[in-house]
Amino acid sequence: MNITIVGLGLIGGSMALELRKQLGVTVFGVDHNIDHCRQAIQLGLVDEIVDLADCLKKSDVIIVSVSIFGILDLLPKLLDDCSNTQLIIDVGSTKHSVCKAVQNHPKRNRFVAAHPLAGTEYSGPSAAHKGLFEGKKNIICDKSKTDAAAVDLAVRIFDSMGLHTVFMESEEHDRHLAYVSHLSHITSFALGLTVLNIEKDETQISNLASTGFASTARLAKSSPTTWSSIFLNNDANVLVALDEYIEVLDRFRSAIKRKDKKQQVQLMQEANAIKYILNKI
Amino acid sequence: MNITIVGLGLIGGSMALELRKQLGVTVFGVDHNIDHCRQAIQLGLVDEIVDLADCLKKSDVIIVSVSIFGILDLLPKLLDDCSNTQLIIDVGSTKHSVCKAVQNHPKRNRFVAAHPLAGTEYSGPSAAHKGLFEGKKNIICDKSKTDAAAVDLAVRIFDSMGLHTVFMESEEHDRHLAYVSHLSHITSFALGLTVLNIEKDETQISNLASTGFASTARLAKSSPTTWSSIFLNNDANVLVALDEYIEVLDRFRSAIKRKDKKQQVQLMQEANAIKYILNKI
Repeated sequence: MNITIVGLGLIGGSMALELRKQLGVTVFGVDHNIDHCRQAIQLGLVDEIVDLADCLKKSDVIIVSVSIFGILDLLPKLLDDCSNTQLIIDVGSTKHSVCKAVQNHPKRNRFVAAHPLAGTEYSGPSAAHKGLFEGKKNIICDKSKTDAAAVDLAVRIFDSMGLHTVFMESEEHDRHLAYVSHLSHITSFALGLTVLNIEKDETQISNLASTGFASTARLAKSSPTTWSSIFLNNDANVLVALDEYIEVLDRFRSAIKRKDKKQQVQLMQEANAIKYILNKI
Repeated sequence: MNITIVGLGLIGGSMALELRKQLGVTVFGVDHNIDHCRQAIQLGLVDEIVDLADCLKKSDVIIVSVSIFGILDLLPKLLDDCSNTQLIIDVGSTKHSVCKAVQNHPKRNRFVAAHPLAGTEYSGPSAAHKGLFEGKKNIICDKSKTDAAAVDLAVRIFDSMGLHTVFMESEEHDRHLAYVSHLSHITSFALGLTVLNIEKDETQISNLASTGFASTARLAKSSPTTWSSIFLNNDANVLVALDEYIEVLDRFRSAIKRKDKKQQVQLMQEANAIKYILNKI
């Protein structure tokens, strides 16, 4: 089996590594960034760099791991040209706009909309590494729209990377992800920015910030391009989550302003219940 | 040398462990919670449990590691009764209210106001462990108010735990800490609470939350009692930090609502600069 990965960043590059190692397939790579192509070869992520135009001629499976806008542009073209045995998978972080864009495509059943829940704050081919997906969840959306054998093949491919696949509708995926992923990126970006705005003396931040701050602000290192693409494609859900978050912050603000210990403790005790969920992640 | 630790939680218990191991001193423990006393003995944190009333009779150094309100209550009494060779250290997380409360005390020079920047989201004697302080910063505030030899002894004690001491005025400490520690606890508590409010289906959160969420919400597990004590004692600075944070969030909100990619990317690029600081933590 030959597989092409389009987009050799953290996710695409790490998938390429796993596929070569675990399934022993030939992995072709496509990336519009020449430096990324060079790195992907040097790092042994892929067997060969090919042109986008050639990848359908050479591969049984194409995995598209670029920004959502890249996927929205590329996916219909790939489906136009693919055969009834080829499989196109996207691994973007929002799913509804992509699923909607191809919902009436005659080859919709050759497409699997997936989202492996495995990012880090780093990006690019040099961030790719083995084990990134081990034990993580993968979500396949709107599976009833895809040929059953094609879904099975996609699940086997994800299994080989150590991912555990669950199924969900794409609207539901985007609504949930706004809360458990997109919102925490915004809170982290905003925390980083707030501290940088106020603390002009960088040495003081380094001196005083402890591991708690590092943990909470870690996601502020994430890629602006990737995340603007996510926010633009899931804006309605993200805004609902963000409004709710600002409302909760206002409750904290009010309890602190009123020096209302009872209310502060109550809010924090309610928040403490997240520990039962965090312990399962 | 004999040292008494008042308050055998995460910080006090871990200090007791280090002092017994590194300095080989006899460590007495005081805690109003009988269960904590029993655990501290069972876990080998302290040599002996003593009454608060006895600790000055038995010790050269008293380290007070209780809530800020506990410190505000206890510290003047300990200073009233201490000799000119004894040393009282507090290790609370806010410093200005404590320093202010004893600024005119005739024994002020026997007091060292310290803050080791080493917490975790866990609390109580069972959370105490060796190595908690290794390589971490410790801040001593308003050192000009303390006898120079007493400061030296305190620094040696903190050095033995692996802490690196820096000096700062107490107002400055509280202002900086509001940003680099207190604010990130609020953002994390609020994130946990927001997700719990909306995602009634706990399984979905566990399914969908990835390590990014876990990292950002980790501090939401922290102790409500400890943190309300901090918010009540540093409310003015915390409110300034929180207002600034909410303003930054509003800028993100507006950029997402307007689908303004350029503005989103710019905000995130500015936030990315935190990476140079995080890499030093």
